[in-house]
Amino acid sequence: MAISSAAQQGDDRYSDLPSAVARREYRAGKYGSTAGVAPGYVQGNLVILPEAQASAFHRFCQLNPKPCPIIGMSDVGNPSIPALGLDLDIRTDIPQYVVWKDGEAIDRPYEVAKYWRDDLVSFVIGCSYSFEEAMMADDLPIRHIEQDVLVPMYRTNIACKSAGPFAGPMVVSMRPLKPADAIRAVQITSRFPAVHGAPVHLGLPQSIGIKDINKPDYGDAVHINDDEIPVFWACGVTPQAVIAAARVPFAITHAPGVMLVTDLKNKHLAVL
Amino acid sequence: MAISSAAQQGDDRYSDLPSAVARREYRAGKYGSTAGVAPGYVQGNLVILPEAQASAFHRFCQLNPKPCPIIGMSDVGNPSIPALGLDLDIRTDIPQYVVWKDGEAIDRPYEVAKYWRDDLVSFVIGCSYSFEEAMMADDLPIRHIEQDVLVPMYRTNIACKSAGPFAGPMVVSMRPLKPADAIRAVQITSRFPAVHGAPVHLGLPQSIGIKDINKPDYGDAVHINDDEIPVFWACGVTPQAVIAAARVPFAITHAPGVMLVTDLKNKHLAVL
Repeated sequence: MAISSAAQQGDDRYSDLPSAVARREYRAGKYGSTAGVAPGYVQGNLVILPEAQASAFHRFCQLNPKPCPIIGMSDVGNPSIPALGLDLDIRTDIPQYVVWKDGEAIDRPYEVAKYWRDDLVSFVIGCSYSFEEAMMADDLPIRHIEQDVLVPMYRTNIACKSAGPFAGPMVVSMRPLKPADAIRAVQITSRFPAVHGAPVHLGLPQSIGIKDINKPDYGDAVHINDDEIPVFWACGVTPQAVIAAARVPFAITHAPGVMLVTDLKNKHLAVL
Repeated sequence: MAISSAAQQGDDRYSDLPSAVARREYRAGKYGSTAGVAPGYVQGNLVILPEAQASAFHRFCQLNPKPCPIIGMSDVGNPSIPALGLDLDIRTDIPQYVVWKDGEAIDRPYEVAKYWRDDLVSFVIGCSYSFEEAMMADDLPIRHIEQDVLVPMYRTNIACKSAGPFAGPMVVSMRPLKPADAIRAVQITSRFPAVHGAPVHLGLPQSIGIKDINKPDYGDAVHINDDEIPVFWACGVTPQAVIAAARVPFAITHAPGVMLVTDLKNKHLAVL
């Protein structure tokens, strides 16, 4: 294939991408939040599971595409995912990881080469950074970015469809918007089904089991003005919560806030 | 043109359309609501003005496309609008009209041939029946249809952009929906900009100047369940209210609930 052989030859067109540069820096030991890194390029949530659990998890994602949109997947035991980056090494290219044993976090290493096994399968799942970029490009305000805090996230009473050991409630992220902006946000994010797509709810948090909008289950609370409504999107924390609850024998994920930076462009994910 | 000459020859392909049949029946004196007539075909609001006011009104529509989407327009003094129906005669093909003088309704005749003048221009403006059909085709409930009443409509504090004597607030129609259905309704109606398109507001009626959602300014109140939010669309009553307020010397409109049935198909208005 033309692109592969170009990469094998070290073609600068690929290795000079800001996303590829960022991955090389993380690989070399750099640390830091990936928010704002390589603008325009897709970032993703990481889930690595043994093959014994991977097929059930794959089915879980298939059944719950809004919280778990898969944007890339590896072969068994293979740490590369060329569709997301020709030189990508999933063991080293994320700033920090969490290693899970029986549902407990047992390590937070900066690379996972020593944990690598021949039966591991990597899943990369779309992330809200992509649709937030599209919203900001349309001049929509994003409160948690304005307030420089983490997006507020909530466990809901919306049950995910279960697959094998994987089951649990959908986790949603919330952004307050004026109603006309909320309508515009539905239009914009509907174009990006691979990164959570349209909101799943708006306006009535209690209807989806959120008791106190000011007390998110993850992330930070943000201010909602009187002329705004809360708008909720399916969140990539859902699969992490589900994996922890399933107490699988072994898993690796990215650490919160530090994502996999890929060579895909956000704008190329738009279906319209 | 092929279609015109077919019509001139009385080609049955055109004269047998359910929309054309309905217009001929109204022309022959039949009376009744056009709701549910010729399913699948576009119905429109009618505004007829003297040329002296028509250009300012055309500008008003251009400036306010959400409440006033023009789907057809006649030449000066010409009662036909072939783009909406080859044999259409705007003076006779609507069940009932309202004739306005200096902002007052002076007559409600069943045809307006005796009022016809060589300086009149007809505007046909998209109507919510079209997007409601698309919503129902997607299994979304429409409360005022379920309750068999008129859609509730409200004057808002959203000012239309003015043009000449034409100015005033936007009138909106309201449909209560569960939040997930409201999101779906935004997606569906966004495809139909020629018939009011996406909602202009949802969730916070007081933000757009609606004091009591149970007391609409036009139409009937409908029940809103606890798990629903009110969703508001720009309404074709806006231009009628604006024309009455402008107290133009002369105008003709359709009577409420009886629209112009055209040969356009609703589905063909979808932009996606």
